[in-house]
Amino acid sequence: MIVIKLGGSAGVDVDAVCADVAALAQDRVPLVFVHGGSHATNEVAQALGHPARFVTSPSGYESRLTDRKTLEIFEMVYCGSVNKGIVERLQRAGVDAVGLSGLDGRLWEGKRKKALRAVENGRVRVVRDTWTGTVERVRTGLLTMLLEAGCVPVLSPPGASEDGEAINVDGDRAAAATAAALGADTLLLLSNVPGVLRDKDDPSTLRSEIARDELEAVRDEVGGRMKIKLLGAAEALAGGVKRVVIGDSRGEAPVRRALDGKGTVIA
Amino acid sequence: MIVIKLGGSAGVDVDAVCADVAALAQDRVPLVFVHGGSHATNEVAQALGHPARFVTSPSGYESRLTDRKTLEIFEMVYCGSVNKGIVERLQRAGVDAVGLSGLDGRLWEGKRKKALRAVENGRVRVVRDTWTGTVERVRTGLLTMLLEAGCVPVLSPPGASEDGEAINVDGDRAAAATAAALGADTLLLLSNVPGVLRDKDDPSTLRSEIARDELEAVRDEVGGRMKIKLLGAAEALAGGVKRVVIGDSRGEAPVRRALDGKGTVIA
Repeated sequence: MIVIKLGGSAGVDVDAVCADVAALAQDRVPLVFVHGGSHATNEVAQALGHPARFVTSPSGYESRLTDRKTLEIFEMVYCGSVNKGIVERLQRAGVDAVGLSGLDGRLWEGKRKKALRAVENGRVRVVRDTWTGTVERVRTGLLTMLLEAGCVPVLSPPGASEDGEAINVDGDRAAAATAAALGADTLLLLSNVPGVLRDKDDPSTLRSEIARDELEAVRDEVGGRMKIKLLGAAEALAGGVKRVVIGDSRGEAPVRRALDGKGTVIA
Repeated sequence: MIVIKLGGSAGVDVDAVCADVAALAQDRVPLVFVHGGSHATNEVAQALGHPARFVTSPSGYESRLTDRKTLEIFEMVYCGSVNKGIVERLQRAGVDAVGLSGLDGRLWEGKRKKALRAVENGRVRVVRDTWTGTVERVRTGLLTMLLEAGCVPVLSPPGASEDGEAINVDGDRAAAATAAALGADTLLLLSNVPGVLRDKDDPSTLRSEIARDELEAVRDEVGGRMKIKLLGAAEALAGGVKRVVIGDSRGEAPVRRALDGKGTVIA
C-alpha cells in the first residue's frame, strides 16, 4: 500500500503525477492519492476579494488563516476544482477514481481549534473564529471498502471536527495519518522541490537520506512548508510507515522516481 | 428507497431540507440526496469575470452554456461549495453523509455532446466546445455499497463521459435516472416553487396531481426549469419509480410534506 500526496504549490506537475498514478493503479498497486490546492486557493481568494492570509505559530509552523469565508473558498478549490480535476485525469486514463474530502464519512477527524496563537512582529497574539484542526483519527472503513472494490480514493482537505464541522487540516499530515492508519509501507510527499535541501535556494544541496533519529534536528533547520512535511514524515514513521520519500512532482515519471528513492528518503 | 433532489435556484431552503433528511436518515430510511447549484454558480461565475450564459434548445429546454472554463467554475460551486455545505450540515446532524459527483466512480455516465443546437432570435445555430451530456447509465455498485454501510450519498453534477471527461448533466434528470436505477419508490424534486402551477405567477393554481398520461401535454404548457423537471419525472416513471413529487423546499418539514403528497404528485 502506497499513499501519494501531491502538494498544491505553484509549479507542481499534476499531469505527470496522475499519469504515473494511473500506471500504478493499472498494475493493481493499492494506493491512496491525497492532494493540496494552496496556490489555486490563493488565486481564487484574491479574485473573489478575500485574499489569503497566513500565520506563523510560536513553534514556527506556517498555516492559512481560515475564517469561515476562507474555509468556503478553500472547499471550492480543493474539493471542487483540484479534486475533480485529478479524478477526471485518472478517469480519462481508465482508473476508477473516487474523490472525497476528509469531511465525507468523517474520513479525517479531529478537534476544531476555534482560536490559535500566532506570532506577529515578534509578539504572540490569539486569533479567533478559525476553522482549523489536526487529523487525530482516520476512519479507514470507507477507504478499505473503496480499495477492495478496485477504486483509487483521491482525498482532499478539509477534515471533520468531532461535531461534524468542516476544518482546514494540513494535507501532508493528513496523508501521513492516512498512511499510518492503512498500514502503508510507503508515503510519498511530492511537491515543487527536489526534496529536503540544506540550502533551500540550491537544489544541489539535496539531502538524499535522513535517518529517523535526525528528523527533529533537521526540522529545526528548515522553514516554510518543509517544516510541516518533516513533521508529517515523523508522524508517519511513528505510526508504522516504513519509508517516507519527499520528492519532486516535476519531470518524467515522478512517482516511479520517488519510489526508486529519488528525493529525500526518510526511514 | 427515496431519492431527494434539491434544486439550486435562489431561495431554496437548504437548512430545512437537510434537517428533514437527517431525521429520515436517523429513522433508517434508505435515501440518496441529489442537489443543484445553479444560482450560486451564476454568482461565482460573475465574480470571476466569466458570467453565466444560457441557451434554449429547438425543443424548448433551457440549459447552461458550458465551455471548459464554465465547467470548472461549475465544479467548484457544485462539488466544492454546495456539496460540502450539505455534507457538513448532515454530518453536524449526526448523519454519515458522503458527497460525490457523478464523475466519481463514473456514477453518472453518458455521452459528451461537444456541440449543441440552440435557438437565438428565432434561428437555430450550432454551439461548439460544450462539456455537456445526459446520464444514460447509473453505476449503482458504489451507491449500494455506501447505502449498505449506513451512509447517505450526496450526489452532484457533473457526470462522466464514456471517455471519463467531466460533463455538465441536468440534476433533475440525473436524480430521475438514479431513482430508476436504484429501484426507488419515490423521487422528490424540491425547489423554490410549490409545485407545477397552471399560472407560474399564481401559487393558488397548483396542480396537485398529474396523471402519467397527462405528463406530455403539461410539459408542452410549462416553461423554464419546470419543463425539464417534468421530463425527469416522465423518465423516472418510465424507469419504474412509483411516484414523483414536485414540491417546495421552503417552510417547515419540506421533505415530510412532499412525502405526504404536498406539491404536485405524478404517478
